[in-house]
Amino acid sequence: MSDLKTQIEALGPAARQAARALAVSGTAEKNRLLLAIADALEKEQETIIAANRQDLEQGKQAGLSAAMLDRLELNPKRIAAMAKGVREVSSLADPLDDADKVLKDWTRPNGLHLQKVRVPIGVIGIIYESRPNVTIDASVLCLKTGNATILRGGKEAIHSNKALVEIVGKAAVSAGFPKDVVSLVPVTDREAIPILCAMDKYIDLIIPRGGHGLVETVVTHARMPVLKHYHGVCHVYVHANANLAMAEKIILNAKCQRPGVCNAMETLLVDKAIAKQFLPLIAKSLREKGVKLFGDQAASEALGEKLEEPVDWVTEYLDLILAVSVVDDLSAAVEHIEKYGSHHTDTIVTNDETVANEFLRRVDSAAVFWNASTRFNDGGEFGFGAEIGISTDKLHARGPMALEELTSYKYVGRGNGQIRG
Amino acid sequence: MSDLKTQIEALGPAARQAARALAVSGTAEKNRLLLAIADALEKEQETIIAANRQDLEQGKQAGLSAAMLDRLELNPKRIAAMAKGVREVSSLADPLDDADKVLKDWTRPNGLHLQKVRVPIGVIGIIYESRPNVTIDASVLCLKTGNATILRGGKEAIHSNKALVEIVGKAAVSAGFPKDVVSLVPVTDREAIPILCAMDKYIDLIIPRGGHGLVETVVTHARMPVLKHYHGVCHVYVHANANLAMAEKIILNAKCQRPGVCNAMETLLVDKAIAKQFLPLIAKSLREKGVKLFGDQAASEALGEKLEEPVDWVTEYLDLILAVSVVDDLSAAVEHIEKYGSHHTDTIVTNDETVANEFLRRVDSAAVFWNASTRFNDGGEFGFGAEIGISTDKLHARGPMALEELTSYKYVGRGNGQIRG
Repeated sequence: MSDLKTQIEALGPAARQAARALAVSGTAEKNRLLLAIADALEKEQETIIAANRQDLEQGKQAGLSAAMLDRLELNPKRIAAMAKGVREVSSLADPLDDADKVLKDWTRPNGLHLQKVRVPIGVIGIIYESRPNVTIDASVLCLKTGNATILRGGKEAIHSNKALVEIVGKAAVSAGFPKDVVSLVPVTDREAIPILCAMDKYIDLIIPRGGHGLVETVVTHARMPVLKHYHGVCHVYVHANANLAMAEKIILNAKCQRPGVCNAMETLLVDKAIAKQFLPLIAKSLREKGVKLFGDQAASEALGEKLEEPVDWVTEYLDLILAVSVVDDLSAAVEHIEKYGSHHTDTIVTNDETVANEFLRRVDSAAVFWNASTRFNDGGEFGFGAEIGISTDKLHARGPMALEELTSYKYVGRGNGQIRG
Repeated sequence: MSDLKTQIEALGPAARQAARALAVSGTAEKNRLLLAIADALEKEQETIIAANRQDLEQGKQAGLSAAMLDRLELNPKRIAAMAKGVREVSSLADPLDDADKVLKDWTRPNGLHLQKVRVPIGVIGIIYESRPNVTIDASVLCLKTGNATILRGGKEAIHSNKALVEIVGKAAVSAGFPKDVVSLVPVTDREAIPILCAMDKYIDLIIPRGGHGLVETVVTHARMPVLKHYHGVCHVYVHANANLAMAEKIILNAKCQRPGVCNAMETLLVDKAIAKQFLPLIAKSLREKGVKLFGDQAASEALGEKLEEPVDWVTEYLDLILAVSVVDDLSAAVEHIEKYGSHHTDTIVTNDETVANEFLRRVDSAAVFWNASTRFNDGGEFGFGAEIGISTDKLHARGPMALEELTSYKYVGRGNGQIRG
């Protein structure tokens, strides 16, 4: 443990130094760094694939499913896609460039000229369990915005991650940056997370990307700010005055287009005024898509068929499963969402603009939609170019966390000898 | 402990309900609430003074100093000032009103109309040790921005705080809001803080205002975001090419005008090129103001007098004490500030604009100044109207935390049946 601690803590000062180098570098230099990384990924393709093969071997021995092994695999096509992604990020606008960095500019009566200017956050810790491409995708967004990262990936991908971060480090040096602009916790012991979470002197923000256990560990231990990319218990409420054909289209999309993601719908709320008319129709369409329905007593009655009750209303199924509740009115829908939802994404389907505005105002979620699929709560769909995830927190970044959300700010004051009276 | 826990946890759901009522209320309704509070403070002056007398009695018995008893005391003049402060906040612009709340507004190629709109944060926990007027000052800024608060004041002011929060609650009810828009942890046991810090389901943000021990306890235990209003180890760097008369004026102001506040200067960095010329001059002026000087070897040499070395360079003296170091150049000054500073406020005095811009760019502090006193890092001085404190954190709010910083945002999307392809 003590060795582990020393080893991980050593990443802190190096990352801080690298962050300082990034913070004073311009857009062109940072983009040069990104392009060097893209080139290096392609050039070192064989090194990556050899390391990845070790992970795949290890995964097979550990009995990973075919699907998991597939997600783990890096091949020439996927490496090319990774490099392409890096080049795309390099071509995005830099929120820190001279044209965009000044957020406010004003002069006080005493002549003190003040500016609020964007700056990088500093060092960002990213803890993830997912595919090795996250290693590149996430760290490159941080580099674009002048932040150093300390990554802690899952044990399944440790060999791939080590190879990738080493390649990034070499590319960084070749582009005139410190090697440690991106660093990787070289061990996958569980104890690594509490150690990282105590390094608030060196890590300015921690982003956990993963399941409940990971997020809970980080929230419990972190001394620095945390931005959780947590679960989405998203609702669609079909109001009494809804276009039912539109409602059906939105529900099928929100539930079935990609059920395994956080902005997919988990609960359908149907207004009692239309429940008898709408539920048989939507149940049929959903079942044709393979969706299993749970429902409350009122839903069963409206459908004319006994539905299994859901265990609770807070579970994120991430699967072709939908919980259905019949609600009395708009207020009951809002109450349900506020009580059981995860404040991620919620939609109302209605033709009534007044009702819609009431819903949009009262539901306290990162994104609230009127007559649109929950699936639109996404950086790409919002036109943000890239996102590091969808924040379920309320401070600093809420919803799609894109380049701007990876920055902080400071105040710069220019005077000619002003003092306070 | 278990009773205490139950008692404190009961504040959570009530505050959440109150926050929901505040969140959907308009500017006029919130201002009416503030004015009702101001009136009630004046009308219930005797109740407040009677409760305050209990605190003063208790304080005397506990041996509080005359200065502390003075800070604790509420009298008609101070209550009138409190009420005046509340009325001033009511007259400030509301960042959540219709004119200001839309931060972005755009339409996607698919016709989905998106807005990024300001919303309140929700429930804010404020833990403080200071004077009872903070109970009103802080909670009123939160109410103005639609947030409910759970307050935890110091034990010295418990009777005053209880009386004040009860008056606020009654005023809230009279203005059509729930009583619990402001609530007070009714006990002052130390164990209350970890209990509050675990209530992330009900408290969206915790603001600790106080000394190291308090901040440390909150940072260790908090599961929700924390905005620290922490210490200021602020520097003034006098560059080789400085106007020395201006430097003297700024240093005297930064150190002496109000030494007990976070934006007062703690360390003077003098460029070696001018140290022999400048140090004797500034040492004389500072000593005339009663300032005790510490200094490093080089400072002693330049001054021609052996200065006592400071114990360290990270102490916030909050007193007429100044640590002086002679540095080689701009880079050495920046290194010193980055190594020992608290990223609060730092100033360079120079006639050289290029050097100044380099300093402003490289020093990573909430506020960086060129030719102005560190004392300007302040919401009032920035023209923000009011502030709840000066954040030393880097996420969400950095520097003066005013009304805008007491808000979050959400995305509102209006469509006509959009689904993802």
